[in-house]
Amino acid sequence: MTNGLMMASQLTVTSILRHAQKFHPHAEIVSRLASNEIHRYTYADFGRRVHQLANALVDMGVRPGDRVATLAWNGYRHMEIYYAVSCLGAICHTINPRLFQEQLSYIANHAEDTHLFFDLHFAKLVEGLAGDLKTVRGYVALCEADELPDVELPNLTAYETLIADKSDRFDWPELDEWTASALCYTSGTTGNPKGVLYNHRSTVIHALSVSGGDWLAIRARDAILPVVPMFHANAWGIPYAGLMNGAKLVLPGHAMDGRSLAELVIGEGVTLMAGVPTVWLELLRHLRETGQRLDRVERMMVGGSAAPYAMIKAFEEDHDVRVVHGWGMTELSPVGTLGALKGNEVTLPAEERYKIQSLQGRPLYGVELRIVDAEGKALPHDGVSSGILQVRGPWVASGYYKGDAPEQFTEDGWFSTGDLAALDEEGHLRITDRTKDVIKSGGEWISSIDIENVAVGHPKVAEVACIAVPHSKWGERPMICVVPQDGEEVDPAEVLAMYDGKVAKWWIPDHVEVVESLPHTATGKLSKLTLRERFADFRLPTDQ
Amino acid sequence: MTNGLMMASQLTVTSILRHAQKFHPHAEIVSRLASNEIHRYTYADFGRRVHQLANALVDMGVRPGDRVATLAWNGYRHMEIYYAVSCLGAICHTINPRLFQEQLSYIANHAEDTHLFFDLHFAKLVEGLAGDLKTVRGYVALCEADELPDVELPNLTAYETLIADKSDRFDWPELDEWTASALCYTSGTTGNPKGVLYNHRSTVIHALSVSGGDWLAIRARDAILPVVPMFHANAWGIPYAGLMNGAKLVLPGHAMDGRSLAELVIGEGVTLMAGVPTVWLELLRHLRETGQRLDRVERMMVGGSAAPYAMIKAFEEDHDVRVVHGWGMTELSPVGTLGALKGNEVTLPAEERYKIQSLQGRPLYGVELRIVDAEGKALPHDGVSSGILQVRGPWVASGYYKGDAPEQFTEDGWFSTGDLAALDEEGHLRITDRTKDVIKSGGEWISSIDIENVAVGHPKVAEVACIAVPHSKWGERPMICVVPQDGEEVDPAEVLAMYDGKVAKWWIPDHVEVVESLPHTATGKLSKLTLRERFADFRLPTDQ
Repeated sequence: MTNGLMMASQLTVTSILRHAQKFHPHAEIVSRLASNEIHRYTYADFGRRVHQLANALVDMGVRPGDRVATLAWNGYRHMEIYYAVSCLGAICHTINPRLFQEQLSYIANHAEDTHLFFDLHFAKLVEGLAGDLKTVRGYVALCEADELPDVELPNLTAYETLIADKSDRFDWPELDEWTASALCYTSGTTGNPKGVLYNHRSTVIHALSVSGGDWLAIRARDAILPVVPMFHANAWGIPYAGLMNGAKLVLPGHAMDGRSLAELVIGEGVTLMAGVPTVWLELLRHLRETGQRLDRVERMMVGGSAAPYAMIKAFEEDHDVRVVHGWGMTELSPVGTLGALKGNEVTLPAEERYKIQSLQGRPLYGVELRIVDAEGKALPHDGVSSGILQVRGPWVASGYYKGDAPEQFTEDGWFSTGDLAALDEEGHLRITDRTKDVIKSGGEWISSIDIENVAVGHPKVAEVACIAVPHSKWGERPMICVVPQDGEEVDPAEVLAMYDGKVAKWWIPDHVEVVESLPHTATGKLSKLTLRERFADFRLPTDQ
Repeated sequence: MTNGLMMASQLTVTSILRHAQKFHPHAEIVSRLASNEIHRYTYADFGRRVHQLANALVDMGVRPGDRVATLAWNGYRHMEIYYAVSCLGAICHTINPRLFQEQLSYIANHAEDTHLFFDLHFAKLVEGLAGDLKTVRGYVALCEADELPDVELPNLTAYETLIADKSDRFDWPELDEWTASALCYTSGTTGNPKGVLYNHRSTVIHALSVSGGDWLAIRARDAILPVVPMFHANAWGIPYAGLMNGAKLVLPGHAMDGRSLAELVIGEGVTLMAGVPTVWLELLRHLRETGQRLDRVERMMVGGSAAPYAMIKAFEEDHDVRVVHGWGMTELSPVGTLGALKGNEVTLPAEERYKIQSLQGRPLYGVELRIVDAEGKALPHDGVSSGILQVRGPWVASGYYKGDAPEQFTEDGWFSTGDLAALDEEGHLRITDRTKDVIKSGGEWISSIDIENVAVGHPKVAEVACIAVPHSKWGERPMICVVPQDGEEVDPAEVLAMYDGKVAKWWIPDHVEVVESLPHTATGKLSKLTLRERFADFRLPTDQ
């Protein structure tokens, strides 16, 4: 082989920062503060403060490779930490404050964090946690000197005190692009949280790719509202892709209710927003109540869980906002697929388009997808065959921090996602289930999601969970737990009748259990694990 | 430092091909043939033929690192060569057929090309050249078996004969991303052509970056017409960025007249086109004559030389097409800057916007720019200070093939472009001159381009060239050569009067010479070198 003669410029977070400072000094970062007030400054201001923070971090003894933790909402100080820590060669470790206390201390101890930066909202949480944190040497509250919270914490400083007298110049180290830049733990419903250790290269390539015309299509003239938190897989890369392209960033802080979001979206001229469906449903409800319109929003990214068809339709028809549905994972930095329409799809009747938009999208260049059966054999992309989804690419984890859960990484170099999915000929992804939730009946798979989607269509049903229950003949059979709408009574026979003609006969659940509520995890996901445990000894009527 | 734990997936042209085949099998490539007929097929067809060609190349003895040359217009077979050669680990060497014969043989011999693929249009050219080519072992005409041209060439085969019986499966080697992928010579107005050796990494990162929302913003639903030739710095990366994003490609072949282009643009639903100003002026003229409209075109990229203000205005106001002006060089893969508007610029009055759009744009993330004075000292980004433009980044050449012209690469790792430019605070680039064309008067620089721009505004003037002439007191002083419009007479005093109040007094040319025509290079650029030689002994009236 012959090598080319092109520069070996490293793809680093530092290069994003430099580009932003040099060519977009007047671009804005707007943040909602803990006080609900709005803070605004420019990339130039941001850059100077990142330099100040870097000087402060060095003075605090933060060294390359150290993990510096955050427990914080989306805001300008959190952005400063993202950049200062990574550009130093240290590792910005964002922790999800919604986790249970024992998970939080497990994560901080596993990561061996040296410092913890936290929003005022989490002062009490951190105080309760501190006794369990074995490696944290210092705490920094993201506030002014006179806002320092009244909590007992060793080496507690206010962020503004920390950087106040520091120089706003800093000579960044010339980092290799493989250097670790950030750490984020993914908390499944089983086992301990596992750490994904991003590097500068993966972060930059991911940001470049999601900026593409079919994806976030970020332009300098955009104002982006990432409602998806910065502690959740880097807010889908927007803190990097936004600055890379000189866009205005609008950071909502803690206030994610419909009214607060509408105020920011309309007041700041947001053109692009990104978040999970529940947030948008809240926003929709608020807009309906007030009659407000999202005139400047062009597109919204929806991920985290499936976007309801009705929501896609409402945003498009009532607000002229194109909903782009996506699928990702912390292990994928996190974007894997996004729902950009192809040429022949754009002109479809609206109802058919919404169906395609309800799928999980198609892979960005860089994300290789394959679906395999239980023996690892590749399945066809026919839109029907459903198998274990595996992923490969420059922004996909090659392993978990400290070698946890090696079984999720195949010998031939793919990451096994734990999702079951089908792919059609055009690359559209349809997540059919989680591997641990699928029902294995007589050697065949039944999608718990497909089963739930039918029952949830019943007008008296509020929520549904489909789980596998042991069966002496079939191994497992599906049953569903159904929560009625407030004040309604649900007749199991009526629910079962809905399956006629909608799924294969042998997919129809063997039992409908009406329950008052369903168990959820700390991050709000349905905990089928808890449910399966509850029904582990249940004898199905078909298995007496 | 700690390395991250992300996959070391290599950024290769092969990964673009695989993505295109797997997730966009039905996307189209449409080409105009030598016969003027239209050829169309899908990415799936394309992929199969690339595999066939790869098998053929291996059988011909092409080995990793070999240079395989092309002399061809934009067409599907040229695309197949691009991919098959690079994905094999060999080097696709595109040669510009518009060069003089001695330059062509110099280039092929310097590159030590092993094979030459050529379009039927160039059969006679290649026949005349073959005797001088020292390393070419075989010739392939891009045609059917029965179209083989009647020329004397050793080991001449028709392309379709070559691949006809080959398998359409091929196991690509797993290439390192630093492997050389393509070679393109840049022909300045002085000295021998110099080779730029791209690698897979630079090609992929460039393609990712130009796909961004503010730049080409390529979507799967786009139909892209690259009029810029594939022998000219990879047609601005469109052969890669197009496939990466699943876009329809519309390749115009040899026919770049207004009527042929209009037929393709309208008939194929082109949404994005890219080329040099002269091509678009031709198209505009044709559209005015026929009254045709470009209803589906959204944006057009213009580069190679400066886009006239009037052209930008005409496309926008008559056809609702946004003109994006850019600057690039073969050494930059080639895109350096593109003219996307920022938020505060979008709402400017049209006339002010066009002025910004007439600048050369602003740098994409990845392109670092600096301007320095003759001593190498950095100049401010104030929009006024003009200095030597230097560039750095992952898709910038680190040196020329075989070490030619090392003086263009600075000790601290920048490429010195040979352009003089100013940068403003927002990163807008304004090319003020070529370093070799600038006039050094009394130690200060005078921009020859600025001087020309004034005189070309005279209604009787067709073309202007401003050059430096030796001056005993000032070192150099500017003079201009003026070509009158057909049938017009130009009064030098009238031309000089135009400078009043438009430039500094000491910038006003010392002399106006009315000439019948100006010398041009093989690629159609004004040859100021020839002009300077002609006037080397001229005594200015101010220096008697």
